[in-house]
Amino acid sequence: MIEEIYGGANGILGILNEELIDLNEEKARSIEGLKHTPAAALGTCRYKLDFKKKPEQAARDMDRLFEVFKAHNIRYFFYAGGNDSQDTANKIHEETIKRSFEVRVIGVPKTIDNDLPHTDHCPGYGSVIKYNAATVMEVAADVSSMATDDGSCCIIEVMGRAAGWIAAGAVLAKRNPESAPHIILLPEIPFNEAAFIEKVKQTVAKLRYCIVVVGEGLKNHKGEEIGADKSRLDAFGHAVLSGAADRLAEIVQGRLSLKTRTVKLGYAQRAAAHFASETDMAEAVACGEAAVRAAVDGKSGFMVKLVRQQSQPYRWTTGLQDLKDIANVEHFIPRDWITEDGFLPNEKFIAYARPLIEGEVKVPMEGGLPKYVTLEKVPVDKLLPPRM
Amino acid sequence: MIEEIYGGANGILGILNEELIDLNEEKARSIEGLKHTPAAALGTCRYKLDFKKKPEQAARDMDRLFEVFKAHNIRYFFYAGGNDSQDTANKIHEETIKRSFEVRVIGVPKTIDNDLPHTDHCPGYGSVIKYNAATVMEVAADVSSMATDDGSCCIIEVMGRAAGWIAAGAVLAKRNPESAPHIILLPEIPFNEAAFIEKVKQTVAKLRYCIVVVGEGLKNHKGEEIGADKSRLDAFGHAVLSGAADRLAEIVQGRLSLKTRTVKLGYAQRAAAHFASETDMAEAVACGEAAVRAAVDGKSGFMVKLVRQQSQPYRWTTGLQDLKDIANVEHFIPRDWITEDGFLPNEKFIAYARPLIEGEVKVPMEGGLPKYVTLEKVPVDKLLPPRM
Repeated sequence: MIEEIYGGANGILGILNEELIDLNEEKARSIEGLKHTPAAALGTCRYKLDFKKKPEQAARDMDRLFEVFKAHNIRYFFYAGGNDSQDTANKIHEETIKRSFEVRVIGVPKTIDNDLPHTDHCPGYGSVIKYNAATVMEVAADVSSMATDDGSCCIIEVMGRAAGWIAAGAVLAKRNPESAPHIILLPEIPFNEAAFIEKVKQTVAKLRYCIVVVGEGLKNHKGEEIGADKSRLDAFGHAVLSGAADRLAEIVQGRLSLKTRTVKLGYAQRAAAHFASETDMAEAVACGEAAVRAAVDGKSGFMVKLVRQQSQPYRWTTGLQDLKDIANVEHFIPRDWITEDGFLPNEKFIAYARPLIEGEVKVPMEGGLPKYVTLEKVPVDKLLPPRM
Repeated sequence: MIEEIYGGANGILGILNEELIDLNEEKARSIEGLKHTPAAALGTCRYKLDFKKKPEQAARDMDRLFEVFKAHNIRYFFYAGGNDSQDTANKIHEETIKRSFEVRVIGVPKTIDNDLPHTDHCPGYGSVIKYNAATVMEVAADVSSMATDDGSCCIIEVMGRAAGWIAAGAVLAKRNPESAPHIILLPEIPFNEAAFIEKVKQTVAKLRYCIVVVGEGLKNHKGEEIGADKSRLDAFGHAVLSGAADRLAEIVQGRLSLKTRTVKLGYAQRAAAHFASETDMAEAVACGEAAVRAAVDGKSGFMVKLVRQQSQPYRWTTGLQDLKDIANVEHFIPRDWITEDGFLPNEKFIAYARPLIEGEVKVPMEGGLPKYVTLEKVPVDKLLPPRM
């Protein structure tokens, strides 16, 4: 019988620091309210058990995790996130076998990047592309209303370091051949400056304006990110990106003397709960429930996945996939889901993405702004000496 | 009796080019749908009757305008926009008197910048600050959920070249003393780098993260815009701004070694009809109606203004103000509406702004995205030779 439900504050870091939150102390209203609240209510981290680069630290961390599990008799461990989180879950699962200490480990997919393999898509993805597509429609209305013979160009930068799923999703804004977005630059397709400039030029000649969406990780033929600032690295050693849109704006202004503006949605797109997809929310909740059911049924070492049964009308269910098939594998847009010239996703992508943005989450409002939930976060008493 | 209702395509440019749209050809459903549709349905322009810099061109333009008015028997002229548009309306009004050709001219306020004098606020403003404040809440949830001991900072750049009304409006996201935004940098207050860095440092020490909102036109003590790129000028000769947030991020990273990210909402904030204020929409419609009533009553040379009767509960009405009092006068945030240290608007500003974001406009949806209206734009037959 499961007696207590604890949350780790800031993910795996919270377990390492024995910072556990007693979730049974939260109001039912708050737990329910998390469905429409953005961001990770328990906090998140960018901390990795890195056995390759930091083997000693990783081994110490693993020992500590199991000390915390034992001290609090934690027998079920659910970890929600993208590739790095599933990798962490997989390593912990493997250790439970080596150490003969039974903890059932289930990964829950959750990443707006949508780059996990085996699952049809990831919770979070439908909402980010719904918001981004609406934003593209709106920016296009604005830019086209200002379009005079001089022409103009607006470049909207969206998230997506390696995979272009988020950028591609903006195509859903396109309701007829002339409407925006006119060009989508995906990190999967090496940037061809000459072809891009030609396409902007043709679009402006025809429509007097051009809306470009670019994934932040757009790369040149050498594989270098065009917006990368190599002096900055994040905790995983990836270059911090900024300015793909600004770089493109320089190119367009320089080559075509065209009035060019940029929009960089950044974290706003990841957290835009005021315009979330109801389908996405329902799937996210179902993934969490499926994870609990699987663990209670005795399963361990799996990630919950979303399985598409049909696209039109859309029907889906959940399934399970071995964590070892998931960890550190990135899933890219198939090349045949993109037009030959590489500038737009095609009808295959659209058939895939369209159902994911259906329906609107009703967010309670207060004084004209969304009413989001904050957890009380009542700490569980610590039983161990501090982490070394 | 008013027989025909024409729209000028792209504002004054459409009159000059005799590009008139027959609005009676539009469906009633489309006209109604404009209430929830972003951007200028008839198009807009950045064209100015500039008697100072281009006196001959301006004189020719004025002659042409009256030729078009006479050819189509246009006797009522409504012009919606900000300072430059009210200036245009005022010049045309003065000409109607000089030329003894009766055209009743009424200006309609419409600018997210909220920088027109005499009106309590401007249609457009409530919606932009509603969207921006929600975005600040959401970005803050995201950033705070990632906040670990290293700390982090996120800088959100919003519109506002001279006046900080838009930036200030983000304060409505602040629901308690610790919540975001923590710092708002207004173009009205010269940027003090040392005090800013100290404030970021204190905020991160206390909360582990800091959310900064900056108006694009933030200036240093010499009056130079910190994000200005002086090589680019718009049609009015103003410097095109970009990168106030990026410039601040460089400063924060350089001085505090703090993980710093930027969001640049750009046109997205001006066009975010999916999250518009119902109060704002009602006021915009009322301003248009008041303009028509005034003209039919024989008035000319006025701008409709919004008059606040009380703040709590909010009550308002419309009024009229001489166009000559409006044209080219910019209205700034009173200094005593801002805290002494200059880093946040105070309770006076909040009492002013809070009612303006109340209520949500219900936007019809189709396939998970807003259903916006596009006009048919049936042209009125031209009666004149082309503009010289």
